[in-house]
Amino acid sequence: MSNSFNHTKYLILFLLLSLQSKAQNAALFNHISNEVITIPSKVLNEERQIYIYVPKQDSANPNKTFPVLYLLDGENHFHILSAYIDYLSHYEIIPPMMVVGIISKDRRKDLTPTNSTIDYFGKVDSIYKTSGGNEHFFQFIKAELIPYIETNYKAGSYKIFAGHSFGGITTINCMFTHPDMFNAYIAISPSLWWDNKYILKLAESKLTKLADLNKTIFYSTANEGINEPDSFHTDVLKFDSLIANRTPKGLLYKYKCYPEESHMSEPIVAYYEALRFIYQDWKPPLKK
Amino acid sequence: MSNSFNHTKYLILFLLLSLQSKAQNAALFNHISNEVITIPSKVLNEERQIYIYVPKQDSANPNKTFPVLYLLDGENHFHILSAYIDYLSHYEIIPPMMVVGIISKDRRKDLTPTNSTIDYFGKVDSIYKTSGGNEHFFQFIKAELIPYIETNYKAGSYKIFAGHSFGGITTINCMFTHPDMFNAYIAISPSLWWDNKYILKLAESKLTKLADLNKTIFYSTANEGINEPDSFHTDVLKFDSLIANRTPKGLLYKYKCYPEESHMSEPIVAYYEALRFIYQDWKPPLKK
Repeated sequence: MSNSFNHTKYLILFLLLSLQSKAQNAALFNHISNEVITIPSKVLNEERQIYIYVPKQDSANPNKTFPVLYLLDGENHFHILSAYIDYLSHYEIIPPMMVVGIISKDRRKDLTPTNSTIDYFGKVDSIYKTSGGNEHFFQFIKAELIPYIETNYKAGSYKIFAGHSFGGITTINCMFTHPDMFNAYIAISPSLWWDNKYILKLAESKLTKLADLNKTIFYSTANEGINEPDSFHTDVLKFDSLIANRTPKGLLYKYKCYPEESHMSEPIVAYYEALRFIYQDWKPPLKK
Repeated sequence: MSNSFNHTKYLILFLLLSLQSKAQNAALFNHISNEVITIPSKVLNEERQIYIYVPKQDSANPNKTFPVLYLLDGENHFHILSAYIDYLSHYEIIPPMMVVGIISKDRRKDLTPTNSTIDYFGKVDSIYKTSGGNEHFFQFIKAELIPYIETNYKAGSYKIFAGHSFGGITTINCMFTHPDMFNAYIAISPSLWWDNKYILKLAESKLTKLADLNKTIFYSTANEGINEPDSFHTDVLKFDSLIANRTPKGLLYKYKCYPEESHMSEPIVAYYEALRFIYQDWKPPLKK
């Protein structure tokens, strides 16, 4: 698999180290190794840039693999997620894991389930004319990105799919339409208004048919339309009540509202809480 | 000033960029420029390593200066703070600012106001034998570090002093003993138990004498001893009631308790809330 990619790889030194031997207290651990790779995708017929955070490998256990968090809008949230995981895993609050930040050149295309040119207010807006690329984008992730990561890194089988806004409807859409791809989902302020509430209808139809769904999902909202009768906010409440009333066997879910946060500040608090929820029962390995 | 420092400077590329011209949506902004410098301190008679985050300079306003956040335990929290500031300032939620992460080779020395070898449980512990270095450390910051930063970077006059645990008592000690040095203080779970509650006594004696204190302070606790009668937690409650009952003119303060967080997870949520509190009234400059 890896030979088919003529990827360029920039090793990026986030070099905050070198003092380790002198430190009298906790070891300095901010030795973050981030890479930017470019994958020439045949599925999408274009190059895609990917940011990758790799935890430090334990020298006593060089074959240990890591869970992988696939992050949408990577250019926006990669730095925060890699900082959280680096810090929290150092203190054994969550396990060390990889972050794969996916960059979308056209996020309205990649991160929407259907083609529609209707905006949040019900007006036609041509900026959405390329929308509806979710399925194509999932094929890229499934056939090219995940195999690439699993061939070239110590990637384990546990995979999290995380997104915000349009990225949030994308992760929910993936859970219902390709439940084999990921184990856990994060949907921060999912844009459930999209295309006449397409994802709400999908959830309604899928949930009645599912016998089980052994997944974990965290979803949240900020202050978007929080006091309005039919709004961004009430769509997420509707999604939550669908999940709560028809919970498939095995589904672990949590909904959190952050009334103090805006659409753009919310990812800071919500991504942290999502990681804590997904790993709430995780225990660090016993020391030998 | 800068000539007196024979500093080595590693330019560290956190290079997540180069796509900007192709992006169809929000510009990719994770172009984080972090540096590690080494300052040969005469005050401390040793070299000190410093991590520095510098916001992107606005090309239309090349002489604009930035507030500076001086961060204790830099090796631990620098990555999180620089990620927050990079992200939040991009969305104009807080202003762009510099982060100066100070690394302590002996944090028990730098970050304690007095010499004591008594631990939290009242037992003698020789790991504290070098304690009591706050005043010496403040002289380094005042006479060497701040002038270095102000000479070599676009550093403005507004300065924040931020610390966690022993770093928390250090920032509070600095507010009372050198109120000319900083404008705002962050004290996340300050170890007020230190040396028979030395800082509580200092606060009590100083607060009665102060006519005004035009500063901003945010302090917080996690779940440390939260249900115990005389504990880490109750010491912070006592500090909060001292502040609330004897608020000097001009002091803006906020106390927040995070019962769901531990001593080591708390900085993630508390540093974010502290930044939002300090800049609660900040408005982005009007676009021309």
